[in-house]
Amino acid sequence: MVGGGIGAFIGDVHRKAAALDGEIELVCGAFSSNPERSKKSGRQLYLPEERIYETYEQMFEAESRLPEGERMDLVSVVTPNHMHFPPAKMALEKGFHVVCDKPMTVTLEEAKKLQKLVNDTGQLFALTHNYTGYPMVKQARQMIADGSLGTIRKVVAEYPQGWLSSQLEGEGNKQASWRTDPKKAGPAGAMGDIGTHAENLAEYVTGLQISELCADLGHVVPGRQLDDDGNILLRFEGGARGVLHASQISIGEENNLKLFVYGDRAGLEWRQEEPNTLLLKHPDRPTDIYRTGVDHEYLTESALAHTRIPSGHPEGFIEAFANIYRNVALTLRSRLEGKQPDPIHNDFPDVDDGVRGMAFLETVISSGGSDKKWTPFRSV
Amino acid sequence: MVGGGIGAFIGDVHRKAAALDGEIELVCGAFSSNPERSKKSGRQLYLPEERIYETYEQMFEAESRLPEGERMDLVSVVTPNHMHFPPAKMALEKGFHVVCDKPMTVTLEEAKKLQKLVNDTGQLFALTHNYTGYPMVKQARQMIADGSLGTIRKVVAEYPQGWLSSQLEGEGNKQASWRTDPKKAGPAGAMGDIGTHAENLAEYVTGLQISELCADLGHVVPGRQLDDDGNILLRFEGGARGVLHASQISIGEENNLKLFVYGDRAGLEWRQEEPNTLLLKHPDRPTDIYRTGVDHEYLTESALAHTRIPSGHPEGFIEAFANIYRNVALTLRSRLEGKQPDPIHNDFPDVDDGVRGMAFLETVISSGGSDKKWTPFRSV
Amino acid sequence: MVGGGIGAFIGDVHRKAAALDGEIELVCGAFSSNPERSKKSGRQLYLPEERIYETYEQMFEAESRLPEGERMDLVSVVTPNHMHFPPAKMALEKGFHVVCDKPMTVTLEEAKKLQKLVNDTGQLFALTHNYTGYPMVKQARQMIADGSLGTIRKVVAEYPQGWLSSQLEGEGNKQASWRTDPKKAGPAGAMGDIGTHAENLAEYVTGLQISELCADLGHVVPGRQLDDDGNILLRFEGGARGVLHASQISIGEENNLKLFVYGDRAGLEWRQEEPNTLLLKHPDRPTDIYRTGVDHEYLTESALAHTRIPSGHPEGFIEAFANIYRNVALTLRSRLEGKQPDPIHNDFPDVDDGVRGMAFLETVISSGGSDKKWTPFRSV
Amino acid sequence: MVGGGIGAFIGDVHRKAAALDGEIELVCGAFSSNPERSKKSGRQLYLPEERIYETYEQMFEAESRLPEGERMDLVSVVTPNHMHFPPAKMALEKGFHVVCDKPMTVTLEEAKKLQKLVNDTGQLFALTHNYTGYPMVKQARQMIADGSLGTIRKVVAEYPQGWLSSQLEGEGNKQASWRTDPKKAGPAGAMGDIGTHAENLAEYVTGLQISELCADLGHVVPGRQLDDDGNILLRFEGGARGVLHASQISIGEENNLKLFVYGDRAGLEWRQEEPNTLLLKHPDRPTDIYRTGVDHEYLTESALAHTRIPSGHPEGFIEAFANIYRNVALTLRSRLEGKQPDPIHNDFPDVDDGVRGMAFLETVISSGGSDKKWTPFRSV
Repeated sequence: MVGGGIGAFIGDVHRKAAALDGEIELVCGAFSSNPERSKKSGRQLYLPEERIYETYEQMFEAESRLPEGERMDLVSVVTPNHMHFPPAKMALEKGFHVVCDKPMTVTLEEAKKLQKLVNDTGQLFALTHNYTGYPMVKQARQMIADGSLGTIRKVVAEYPQGWLSSQLEGEGNKQASWRTDPKKAGPAGAMGDIGTHAENLAEYVTGLQISELCADLGHVVPGRQLDDDGNILLRFEGGARGVLHASQISIGEENNLKLFVYGDRAGLEWRQEEPNTLLLKHPDRPTDIYRTGVDHEYLTESALAHTRIPSGHPEGFIEAFANIYRNVALTLRSRLEGKQPDPIHNDFPDVDDGVRGMAFLETVISSGGSDKKWTPFRSV
Repeated sequence: MVGGGIGAFIGDVHRKAAALDGEIELVCGAFSSNPERSKKSGRQLYLPEERIYETYEQMFEAESRLPEGERMDLVSVVTPNHMHFPPAKMALEKGFHVVCDKPMTVTLEEAKKLQKLVNDTGQLFALTHNYTGYPMVKQARQMIADGSLGTIRKVVAEYPQGWLSSQLEGEGNKQASWRTDPKKAGPAGAMGDIGTHAENLAEYVTGLQISELCADLGHVVPGRQLDDDGNILLRFEGGARGVLHASQISIGEENNLKLFVYGDRAGLEWRQEEPNTLLLKHPDRPTDIYRTGVDHEYLTESALAHTRIPSGHPEGFIEAFANIYRNVALTLRSRLEGKQPDPIHNDFPDVDDGVRGMAFLETVISSGGSDKKWTPFRSV
Repeated sequence: MVGGGIGAFIGDVHRKAAALDGEIELVCGAFSSNPERSKKSGRQLYLPEERIYETYEQMFEAESRLPEGERMDLVSVVTPNHMHFPPAKMALEKGFHVVCDKPMTVTLEEAKKLQKLVNDTGQLFALTHNYTGYPMVKQARQMIADGSLGTIRKVVAEYPQGWLSSQLEGEGNKQASWRTDPKKAGPAGAMGDIGTHAENLAEYVTGLQISELCADLGHVVPGRQLDDDGNILLRFEGGARGVLHASQISIGEENNLKLFVYGDRAGLEWRQEEPNTLLLKHPDRPTDIYRTGVDHEYLTESALAHTRIPSGHPEGFIEAFANIYRNVALTLRSRLEGKQPDPIHNDFPDVDDGVRGMAFLETVISSGGSDKKWTPFRSV
Repeated sequence: MVGGGIGAFIGDVHRKAAALDGEIELVCGAFSSNPERSKKSGRQLYLPEERIYETYEQMFEAESRLPEGERMDLVSVVTPNHMHFPPAKMALEKGFHVVCDKPMTVTLEEAKKLQKLVNDTGQLFALTHNYTGYPMVKQARQMIADGSLGTIRKVVAEYPQGWLSSQLEGEGNKQASWRTDPKKAGPAGAMGDIGTHAENLAEYVTGLQISELCADLGHVVPGRQLDDDGNILLRFEGGARGVLHASQISIGEENNLKLFVYGDRAGLEWRQEEPNTLLLKHPDRPTDIYRTGVDHEYLTESALAHTRIPSGHPEGFIEAFANIYRNVALTLRSRLEGKQPDPIHNDFPDVDDGVRGMAFLETVISSGGSDKKWTPFRSV
């Protein structure tokens, strides 16, 4: 693991997610740019001294010299945004598979370099757009692919948070500080931190790509350098219209990611804060409440494969995150055993989603500064 | 009453709303452009033959010749949009007070003529943007006016319906037919029918006016002449940003009007389908669930004045509609008694809201056809 | 109308409910045991002086002397419980039809006298167990009658309120005072006021009668003479088991009447505070959300006949109450026109429900005082 | 680990729960009464051959011979009910700490033997009444202990499930088979499987013990030997009344454990299927929505200590289960380090809860067969 030292939110989530299913073991790490903190963190995680590294460069060096079977197979990059690219690049070059946090990089150019590297090396690369790991998101995607909703006409993706409603970054809040600092977060604030999740979710579930958009970005909290609120009109290939709004100044909201998709046959609604429920809305009969649970045989194969326990036993954020790690682990195992990966598990956000995410950010920022209504969204 | 013959949805709602509190009595009507249907409708309503009129012109004539106290005081115009202006204008000219359905007219020009007429005659004119009659909407408006939310930063108004997802107007559905016919509905479809409600609600609750907007209108169902879907970016005076989307092709949705307002101190959420609940969201303490009920002394004076029964006894759409009629009746009574109207009841959408609604429609349509991102929204 | 003077909660609800659909007109009343208050109340209701009576005896006398067509047809008895029997009895004897509030009387003996009188005179008698007027309750009853739930196995009826959690009757609260006074409320407190609603609802929806029960009644608030909390085990004819608990000391609860019914094929859930939704729960497919609305053709004929407006336009407590008045009015009209009443409208709680309610109260009180587990529940 | 071989539901949950926080490592196991299955299961879990045992006796023997630091510290007993007592007893005798699934044993006598053994040996013993591991349950318990609800007056604990609505045990369903077989499940069915959870939750949250009860047990599904439905009236020490009903034939219900507690100052509501929300209901102000989240500083220290991630990132069943394992691990570590255990983590269901659970079952069964209304509930 690169990053994720003591007190880091997302690093800890990555560790729990990787540990949950017993398929992945944490064997080494460089947990901080500060060698002391890295050591301290590693010890707290019960790692042997010799595999707690002071820098990720050192770690890649040392691990690649270990005999196969002993060395780490997979590295998780869980640093702030600006430090995703360097270790991810080096990991791929050194022959390690990579799980990287989002947004993948801070520029589209970096993103495309990683894309090329992944294509050239053929290594696994997973990007933790973790919300696509939820069983009901798999269910939604499959139902749309199967035509249950008919032709998609409208998509509404909403991601209100309120935790940056005040100038937390000025109060020494670690999470807030780097996310609002262009040098660490990159060119986008809320759009990069959560807007890309909403974009990725909308495209993953509908199977449609956004073709053009019109963005209004706000820098609402006085003194904030990066966007903390954004409202976007969407046009999808094939003609569907949509709205995406994401905000970190929607005061009093927690992590209220919502998705509404309307076709010409049915509509659906999903809310991340109650992730085990999916509503399927019909024009002529009662709305169906789809619910997670290994006992719900009416669910699609993929939804069931990403569920662990019977219905009514809620699975949450960590389980969804773990689904990405488990899919990577199972896909990796198939490869190592020379087997064809199971498509149901070979299903996690990858380097192409990362490129698309960075293209989204550049498009949104360009649209935000433009007087033209529509800005085309292309990732190639 | 003008319009609202047998089988008309909204005419019947107006009658029930007017009857609910025993302050208004239906004494006469011209219920249809078809004299036969008008007669038939009047009889079903137990009106005396002589006060069931064949045309509204005839009604205004005859009623104005009746001695005061016997003649009607107030006329309700509940015809399709294109027939709002003529009877409303004549009623005002003949000295009757008017309750008119929305949108007020089919052009901004007509709207301004009514505005001038109301200002000149001093008669009462109410526009049934009925959603502002809900107690929790009064509560929300008052809390914002009192500063409970602080400075408003973001407003999201959503109005998804699904009933026009298919080409109902081709299947002889009366409600669908006139609403999708430019000659009867005017220049706007979904925007006129429900978009204006969302605009009126957002401005009424926040006390802020939209200063510019960016609209993407859709004519989604094949063969439909008017918009049936619209997504709009909003900018408010004072700098708040917002999103308004309204749709009649959000399949499976019923009448799911929702309002979210975020300030720098707190946020609120209200949903018309569960109108007796209002959420107040705080950055640092649990969300409050405000609920209607005459026993809830924590509610504002205005919310209590628009509630009839104790908490847990749901009040609905008709009660909210009736609040507008009751406010008109009580305000009218005060005038007749030469008293100062109670500001709590002298609170209903009026001719200025109607002008603003028509300006909104013209702005939205113009923005929808424009390549420029922002179109200013002015009603004067 | 008998009772329901200024400030009375339920009298006002009766008037609004009767007025809503324009089928019933308030023509006279004796609104209070205090002649002054009766006069004052009548005037506020715009009644002619000569038809505002000082006593109900006087009213029945005077009205029965009026020519048919002018005299009132139907009397509403909305007094405190102990004053239901005398005016109801006299009304029936004088040839008037009756709508009476619940519980019907204060003793089973009185109830049976009214039952005999109704059977002998053949007049209409309706008891306002208003919750059975909700469209979704009609839907639930019909689905069970149609076998959609299969054989009923378990019934849970819950009616928590919190408004009597403190000794309001000691603080001059009019509603609290008579409801907690054995001389006015009769032998039961919460059980009479709301427990009978839960019993009536459970039996109406399931079509099953409770055959025996085991009650634990509480007099929780110090100084209270009547029960304010009750928990009851139920056995139904045919073997279904159940639980009924009703309380007025469930602090913080509003009017949270809930019904859960489980058969061997499906289960259902209904909550009065969100009355337009009914959940149908299946063992092997997603739960269905049934919703009121004249446009929902999937609803039963009876549910549709008790709905006024399209889906998503909430109908509430008053509309449900009005369904009982409208059913009485339409049934009465059929009779007056010598027609067979429409069974869909000839569906309202009647004198037999009233007898059953009083038998329920006597059974519950007897069980509450007994060491035996089961007490049989018989109404004949 | 004892039990929990391939395909076992609860054993897998135990493993994930133990793994989640990286405090506990699975080092050995006897996963099945069938040596082959045990081996196979162990290999799937990546255990070394020599520590996959054929029997638990063999495991305790071998492990106790290993040097400290290498041998297992803690054993999880996750077998069917009738096989809890023998391995738990032996583990304690051999000096291992124990985590045992519930119900603790099949007789009160066995339970008391374990209780004595724990008291004599001073070893840690945790019983996985996992629902008490939820942060909002900790919050509720603390608020009641702090007097926020005042004196408790009424408690309603409901646990409807529907999965045994049909005769699954006849269809080779492994979970259903042992749970409905008196030889494996013990004397109680639904009451043992979930009724004890409801009893434990009610007593844990309120801090009150049930003093007497009146039970009506049903054997609803034809051919079923054990209870599958139970409705119980409760009396608590101090005079509070309550209702507990638990069922596995409430068709269409998933795992709908709910708790309602009403005091003389406030009330609360918690639902396991949406476990991150706790409602605090007041007589005179809006209901508060308490929500989990490490960022919610308004939560009690204990609720925060049992939460991992920020608000709006749902934590579920496995996280609650993991809270019990983490508390055991942290308490054990404190002991090993000779420190005073942190009372916030030294908080998990123990052998006394297990004794109380068995006493509850014997009391419920005895009451179910009795004509007397009340049966005293004593665990000593």
